Amino acid sequence: MTDSTTERDLVLTRLIAAPRAALYRAWTEPELLKRWFAPKPYSVTEAETDLRPGGASRIVMRGPDGSEFPSAGVYLEIVENARIVFTDAYLRAWEPSPKPFFTGIITFEDAEGGTRYTARARHWSAQDRAAHEAMGFHEGWGRCADQLAELAASL
Amino acid sequence: MTDSTTERDLVLTRLIAAPRAALYRAWTEPELLKRWFAPKPYSVTEAETDLRPGGASRIVMRGPDGSEFPSAGVYLEIVENARIVFTDAYLRAWEPSPKPFFTGIITFEDAEGGTRYTARARHWSAQDRAAHEAMGFHEGWGRCADQLAELAASL
Repeated sequence: MTDSTTERDLVLTRLIAAPRAALYRAWTEPELLKRWFAPKPYSVTEAETDLRPGGASRIVMRGPDGSEFPSAGVYLEIVENARIVFTDAYLRAWEPSPKPFFTGIITFEDAEGGTRYTARARHWSAQDRAAHEAMGFHEGWGRCADQLAELAASL
Repeated sequence: MTDSTTERDLVLTRLIAAPRAALYRAWTEPELLKRWFAPKPYSVTEAETDLRPGGASRIVMRGPDGSEFPSAGVYLEIVENARIVFTDAYLRAWEPSPKPFFTGIITFEDAEGGTRYTARARHWSAQDRAAHEAMGFHEGWGRCADQLAELAASL
């Protein structure tokens, strides 16, 4: 990892008491993803997970007042039970988005007591990283990780 | 194809008297790629073609005065003898480049007399498309397509 990359990354990591396969399922099966991907009281109303390089990742979140927040991206790399990479640089294969903001790199590694879960948001610029952090990255992704851990432990 | 995409694309298309497989080889085998990818008197001194989603595409061109022009990207989609997609949005998997500029979408289709060859440069903005056109896209890619056609016909 180069310094120039590190200064553009935001990273969340947890030891989760569930096997890698359960975390992978929670990230990739739409009906499971809906149960943890939005920090409550937000919810996920739609989820599409076309798991292949170039496949669409599309999620719609709904706020408590009914506002909807769609997000679109594509998967870049899928390694079952181990690694998921996606980006918002494309709306679908291969239509550039208005602004490439970040690449998500999600890894699941065996660890004592369960799985080492790491969610890395790698931005195109240090400014975008700072903006994402100011938008509440750590709180938002942290609360979702709690919800993910609870769900994965129940699978 | 949406209008918003079309206005960000630069497209070169040719009917080439060679089979799809010959064009695919010329695009993917480093020793062949070196023979056509730079408009003469420029040359290609190094070429790396790691043909898988996330694999590195790295090419160094050299000008007649010895100046070198390296370019780095990654492949996003590979369909043998049919389609190659790459981008400069990443320097390697998955390190964001300083500026995502374009995605290259190369297609080879059967046609009477040979292969319909289409090279599409899809930019992240209409401004970048205009800049690429002003840099000499049509002349540069056109001269390379001539060299490619000559090489492919000899394979």
